[in-house]
Amino acid sequence: MINIGVVGYGNLGKGVLTALEKCSDMNLVGIFTRRNPEDIASASGKKAYSTSELSKFKDKIDVLILCGGSATDLPTFTKEYLKDFNTVDSFDTHAKIPEYYAELEKVANAYDKVGAISIGWDPGVFSIARALFGAILPEGDDYTFWGKGVSQGHSDALRRIEGVKNAIQYTVPKDQALELVRSGVRPNLTVREKHLRECFVAVCDGADKQKIEEQIVNMPNYFADYDTIVNFVSDEQVKEMQKKLNHGGFVLRSGSTSKQNADLLELTLKLDSNPEFTGSVLVAYARAVYRLSKQGQKGVFTVFDIPLKLLSEKTNEQLRETLL
Amino acid sequence: MINIGVVGYGNLGKGVLTALEKCSDMNLVGIFTRRNPEDIASASGKKAYSTSELSKFKDKIDVLILCGGSATDLPTFTKEYLKDFNTVDSFDTHAKIPEYYAELEKVANAYDKVGAISIGWDPGVFSIARALFGAILPEGDDYTFWGKGVSQGHSDALRRIEGVKNAIQYTVPKDQALELVRSGVRPNLTVREKHLRECFVAVCDGADKQKIEEQIVNMPNYFADYDTIVNFVSDEQVKEMQKKLNHGGFVLRSGSTSKQNADLLELTLKLDSNPEFTGSVLVAYARAVYRLSKQGQKGVFTVFDIPLKLLSEKTNEQLRETLL
Repeated sequence: MINIGVVGYGNLGKGVLTALEKCSDMNLVGIFTRRNPEDIASASGKKAYSTSELSKFKDKIDVLILCGGSATDLPTFTKEYLKDFNTVDSFDTHAKIPEYYAELEKVANAYDKVGAISIGWDPGVFSIARALFGAILPEGDDYTFWGKGVSQGHSDALRRIEGVKNAIQYTVPKDQALELVRSGVRPNLTVREKHLRECFVAVCDGADKQKIEEQIVNMPNYFADYDTIVNFVSDEQVKEMQKKLNHGGFVLRSGSTSKQNADLLELTLKLDSNPEFTGSVLVAYARAVYRLSKQGQKGVFTVFDIPLKLLSEKTNEQLRETLL
Repeated sequence: MINIGVVGYGNLGKGVLTALEKCSDMNLVGIFTRRNPEDIASASGKKAYSTSELSKFKDKIDVLILCGGSATDLPTFTKEYLKDFNTVDSFDTHAKIPEYYAELEKVANAYDKVGAISIGWDPGVFSIARALFGAILPEGDDYTFWGKGVSQGHSDALRRIEGVKNAIQYTVPKDQALELVRSGVRPNLTVREKHLRECFVAVCDGADKQKIEEQIVNMPNYFADYDTIVNFVSDEQVKEMQKKLNHGGFVLRSGSTSKQNADLLELTLKLDSNPEFTGSVLVAYARAVYRLSKQGQKGVFTVFDIPLKLLSEKTNEQLRETLL
């Protein structure tokens, strides 16, 4: 059995717990939280401890699955956890991955640990598709579309606007752009051509809706470069939408093997629950981290470094017999 | 530079040569053939040698790409080549892979060589999707659809019928079945429900078309279990169709992370040229074989054993920066 600790009990932490239930080779040692462990224990029905107690579990946990956010949690804490534990995380600030990697690589090597970073569906499963497709078809163009699904960052940006009580934002891939890519013409697409941003906003009493809408559609970085639709709805309607955490997307490579012959390679994910799926990816890679560590390896690993056989509960013989 | 030898100058061998031209890190040492090397040299514009001369190239070739057939060529010759060379092949008789693996594993270990087997799109890229999808979503069902594309085995079966002059057979996935899988209902599909077999047949003068059609649609293993359409056309029309070698298909996993939440994961390939694409996969894995060998590894490898970073011309840093 692989002994697992889960740090964090937000949506992603809950997704990891759900995923662990599908694995016959995993044992949950406990949830670790910076909140009151008793509250988490009664909410989850699992053992819960304070993160301050983690060092006591040094020899009882094979892999620690880190379910914190990429903005502050992971950059602050992963390097500390990695001194005592093998870790897996879903660090997803694409631009900061090289820096994050370099910092953790030093710790992992110094403390003989394995840390898998940026594990999830993007980065993660989508990165696998981009790397595989590009290695096979060096001549070609990559296209990644996200959605339809909730963007947490854009929803947060809406909620920071004065007069907004609650809000949710869906990133919607434009069918026309997708079909253009699938046609094989290898278009140059602007951000506006690829995705639509649809906002559902509940306002405070007496707020100026027209002013709020103008602020949204002109917000730099978040909305100004997109076609943005603003729908004003009730707080209850937003809360109802916030219960559904579906997401997904498309990775395409349109390329050619020769002048006459073109290819289209496409990966599609349609996910009812973004955190449960991300949790499932984290758990599969926790299995790989455990195996890498048992092999005596150390250092930081991404999806590019880990052979697929290490992810599966099946033996290598079973994989070759049934899935090759 | 990675020094490459290509064994065989059929459609697949030509596809490998085309793929090598896209790689700045590959050097073609020569084509090796059991036919007359002079004919191959003048047809290809490349250096060509008899396979009987291969042993002279022991120290000049890093990886030998084997472009023979799975029925007789690969089972007979790979174990000989592997004594002197690292190899890559596209062995695709799914049921015989474990036996093939075991036999080559002994040779690779005894002679300190790396052999990558069953590299292509199925087995190969499709196997990657099946293993990755299944490791992430242990609860779910796999569906693989092939086509629309030419099945060489079924075309051969048609040509063996008395009175048939020439023929080609397309495997066509049924849209209705694909859509049913995509709907998430996880259907049990019979072979008849998944694929249609469409035959284009040119007959000899005076042949009995009705009798030929009956023989085709009732042929056990090949056609009897399928809806089969037989079109009688001219020899010229068949020859025209034989020039296009497009293929492709779909791997889907329909599963769930919990009672409430289902997921659909799908990989689609649309390939204008089956041999050029398979050749491109072989070349990417030849790069990996070279790197594994340089690391001092030995043995037989499949797509499940090889980390993706080894396939790409990009450095690990570039992969993390641009594709993660």
